[in-house]
Amino acid sequence: MADTSPLISDIETAAARLKGHAERTPLLNAPLLDAEFGRRIFVKAECLQKTGSFKYRGARNAVAALSDAQRAAGVIAFSSGNHAQGVALAARELGATSVIIMPSDAPSLKIVNTRALGAEVVLYDRETEDRDEIGERLSAERGLSLIKPFDNPNVIAGQGTTGLEIAEQSRLAGIDGADVLICCGGGGLTSGIAIALAAKSPDLTPRPVEPEGFDDVTRSLATGTIQTNPRRSGSICDAIITPSPGHLTFPILAAHCGPGVVVSDDDALRAMAIAFTRLKIVLEPGGAVALAAALFHRADSRDVIAVASGGNVDAPLFRMALEKYA
Amino acid sequence: MADTSPLISDIETAAARLKGHAERTPLLNAPLLDAEFGRRIFVKAECLQKTGSFKYRGARNAVAALSDAQRAAGVIAFSSGNHAQGVALAARELGATSVIIMPSDAPSLKIVNTRALGAEVVLYDRETEDRDEIGERLSAERGLSLIKPFDNPNVIAGQGTTGLEIAEQSRLAGIDGADVLICCGGGGLTSGIAIALAAKSPDLTPRPVEPEGFDDVTRSLATGTIQTNPRRSGSICDAIITPSPGHLTFPILAAHCGPGVVVSDDDALRAMAIAFTRLKIVLEPGGAVALAAALFHRADSRDVIAVASGGNVDAPLFRMALEKYA
Repeated sequence: MADTSPLISDIETAAARLKGHAERTPLLNAPLLDAEFGRRIFVKAECLQKTGSFKYRGARNAVAALSDAQRAAGVIAFSSGNHAQGVALAARELGATSVIIMPSDAPSLKIVNTRALGAEVVLYDRETEDRDEIGERLSAERGLSLIKPFDNPNVIAGQGTTGLEIAEQSRLAGIDGADVLICCGGGGLTSGIAIALAAKSPDLTPRPVEPEGFDDVTRSLATGTIQTNPRRSGSICDAIITPSPGHLTFPILAAHCGPGVVVSDDDALRAMAIAFTRLKIVLEPGGAVALAAALFHRADSRDVIAVASGGNVDAPLFRMALEKYA
Repeated sequence: MADTSPLISDIETAAARLKGHAERTPLLNAPLLDAEFGRRIFVKAECLQKTGSFKYRGARNAVAALSDAQRAAGVIAFSSGNHAQGVALAARELGATSVIIMPSDAPSLKIVNTRALGAEVVLYDRETEDRDEIGERLSAERGLSLIKPFDNPNVIAGQGTTGLEIAEQSRLAGIDGADVLICCGGGGLTSGIAIALAAKSPDLTPRPVEPEGFDDVTRSLATGTIQTNPRRSGSICDAIITPSPGHLTFPILAAHCGPGVVVSDDDALRAMAIAFTRLKIVLEPGGAVALAAALFHRADSRDVIAVASGGNVDAPLFRMALEKYA
């Protein structure tokens, strides 16, 4: 696929490729949660996806879309977290080797997990080394295909399969017109879902959700041009901290999304505790911001759908969220 | 339905009644968990069912099976926990009033939740009052229908819909011959799944799992006659502590199940921590014993399916499990 916006047919192709491999995650609902917040709240539980986040969908589709020769040569990705594990697993399942370039200060569990999924992990020092230079050298030496985390049409199409499922599941649940709140970093998941909903459920409105201080997408949508965050770190929502929306994702977001929503880190912790009590799922902070927006940033009683994008959280942080808010 | 063992057709009727109401819970799998334990492990995540446990399935089917006149008169149940919430929600959804008789020392959250789901909660003192006498009096006065927790054919048929889903999902996952380990109290879930698998997937063998000291079903299967536990309390696995298998469930279990498996409370806590880390689901101790058996009580590398029956656990106990084992 050329470097252009994927079509709904590309998302349907991705769904066919993922069938029997990716989990069809449930659209959860808890009557007591609805009663407490005065509206029906549905949660698309992508924390239950293989490797603990939606990232496996896009990675599997992108690796499957390569030619046999490309897969034989192997793939490469940059990531300190969820994309790393998605690419590693997808590559292993499809018989490709994978190289993942990770910062040496990434959480050791994520490094261990990525290696356990069969990837060759190359660590670099954020202070003294240039990861792009390392990546380019390895790619050139070995002919590796780069799997970008969001600005890749096949990745977007893979993430968009989440939107196909939401369209079907919301019809079964009798949802008629609702905002679909989506945890948003670079916009791969949000833009994929946006394309799927525009084609299949135009009564559902995708809206990106971001943490305070990292609201580049919200500001980009409001101004119509790509905005950048002043800081690169400093939120517990590490999974969705990216400097700016992608050149491929932003036009899709601008064409289809309602206004962004911004929530605090504390909102995310409270949403994690409520997801534990009411939904019995484990969310990481970055995977909980959409639920936080559904719970704490709504003025009316209309149905709302929140996409819970991931659950790769360390136990001490999760225990802290429960201690504070459960 | 008369008080006899349900047939596969009764389970299919239940599935039609539950469609669009009960969650079709996923059969989860985590490649890193498989790698760590040397076998494929699949988890049927009934903690994601409405009200946080499988109990909603049987309750909804039993209330739906009543005549209009019976529903108009209302239903009654005895329970301190998951069955209470399942009956309360099913009754409310189907327009019936419900009375739930609960011990006054039941966890206050469970009393609060049951009331919030619309039930009239009648508390009794375990030391000085006879709950059966209270129940009989209320039933006679108001013409209420008693919904027993497991020795009721419609309840068993409702729980059996879990087995229909396992049969379909295991085929899609390419599982060919496996033990299906099931958290077992009175045997409603286990017997329902057993009937479904015997009809749909005879290569899958249901096996009950119980906590140490409360292994009445395991001993009943081994001896061929109904055995009773010496104690009535003293395990953290409160959801599956029942004195003995039911008169309706035991013959079904004896006809279809492989030997029982017994695990320790500590095994259950370890399984809760692993479910947090690898599967991103919240399990209560009684809902984790089947996963514990799949992880810690297997000698070979064959595929195994564990039914995770519920997730209604208080935050302090969950935090303790994480602190100890995550």
